[in-house]
Amino acid sequence: MASKLKVVAFDADDTLWHNERFFKLTQARFAELLGDHADPDHLDQRLLEAERRNIGRYGFGIKGFTLSMIETAVEVSDGRVGAEAVQQIIDWGKDMMAHPVELLAGVAETIEELRRSHRLVLITKGDLFHQETKIAESGLAPHFEAIEILSEKSPEQYRKVLGRAGIDPSGFAMVGNSLRSDVQPVIDIGGHGIHIPYGILWGHERVEAEPNGPTFHRLDCFADLPGLLSQLD
Amino acid sequence: MASKLKVVAFDADDTLWHNERFFKLTQARFAELLGDHADPDHLDQRLLEAERRNIGRYGFGIKGFTLSMIETAVEVSDGRVGAEAVQQIIDWGKDMMAHPVELLAGVAETIEELRRSHRLVLITKGDLFHQETKIAESGLAPHFEAIEILSEKSPEQYRKVLGRAGIDPSGFAMVGNSLRSDVQPVIDIGGHGIHIPYGILWGHERVEAEPNGPTFHRLDCFADLPGLLSQLD
Repeated sequence: MASKLKVVAFDADDTLWHNERFFKLTQARFAELLGDHADPDHLDQRLLEAERRNIGRYGFGIKGFTLSMIETAVEVSDGRVGAEAVQQIIDWGKDMMAHPVELLAGVAETIEELRRSHRLVLITKGDLFHQETKIAESGLAPHFEAIEILSEKSPEQYRKVLGRAGIDPSGFAMVGNSLRSDVQPVIDIGGHGIHIPYGILWGHERVEAEPNGPTFHRLDCFADLPGLLSQLD
Repeated sequence: MASKLKVVAFDADDTLWHNERFFKLTQARFAELLGDHADPDHLDQRLLEAERRNIGRYGFGIKGFTLSMIETAVEVSDGRVGAEAVQQIIDWGKDMMAHPVELLAGVAETIEELRRSHRLVLITKGDLFHQETKIAESGLAPHFEAIEILSEKSPEQYRKVLGRAGIDPSGFAMVGNSLRSDVQPVIDIGGHGIHIPYGILWGHERVEAEPNGPTFHRLDCFADLPGLLSQLD
């Protein structure tokens, strides 16, 4: 099949495998740990504020999240949080990093199928070391002709990746769970953005307005991807 | 000048700019902070042990270092370290990340000169986000035809980078302060390793045996690099 969409790129966390739910789970434990100092909603808010304040320095990933949790614990407890609780938070961070990769439904089969008709690329952001570990563990790496780990997903960064690989944006689609990181910037540079929402979205990734127009697409499940791609041809 | 050595690659931290001394400075403050719980030498040892224990999970960089300092503080104080001290450690980590890049002597002029005769590449390891920030801030980025940020510097990783850029190892030299990361693995794959020691070497980077043979070179200062490269032709 000669396809107009030659290259399909995929986000990784919460697109190919579960991620945000491990953060939520840890946040629930964190709320329990600090129950004497803050109610859960307030604590979530303070943690999100810390993450936002620190993102320009820490970037994305579990190590920065762990440090922001500790900072929030010190803050909401007015400096009364104990060393044991701090160590507990560090251990949760380590547990999150050690958690096995769990692929989302339909991912393995669909990627296997699509690699026969399209060039596949993985474009993720976050912590280099941890992303590499997860990609290796996922077993999906051999299906991708290129793997790009970015510090952030801006139109400029996408343009750079496409330029380096000699990919024309009009023949390029990006698949991901975040409108802000995966969909909008790719539409902005002339590619297709395919949104597959994940149940939970990190506060930092929320956007006000939805994209529209013929290069924006939404799917409910990953296995619908081959159907959409053949329609687009 | 047609050169046999076509491509010269550079490590970044402690090769192009100061790095380890900010770690040492922070460790000195850390020793002061925990003076009641551990003597400085013992504390350094415990911190290095924590870093080694955690490196398989955290990888390289300041966020992991900060988390290892907190863990060590909890450990050596038998859980008595206070929240204020924990926050102090977090703040030191942020200060380190915000520290302006200070180029080493001779780097700016030498890189400027070498780019006229050689293809220059930057190959560094560590935290993606922080390395990108430092590279941008250094002002050196335009001199490099490629910038590679790796999670570790093994012979396999070097082979991959060279393969991707179509570089023959026999025409490749890597310049850096670490025998373990910059010199030995490049000699192992058939390239030249040029060692320019920095005053301080992180415990983790120490090696027992020095490389030898005609592809191993050592320089005392960065400005001697053009002279060495023309001798090698």
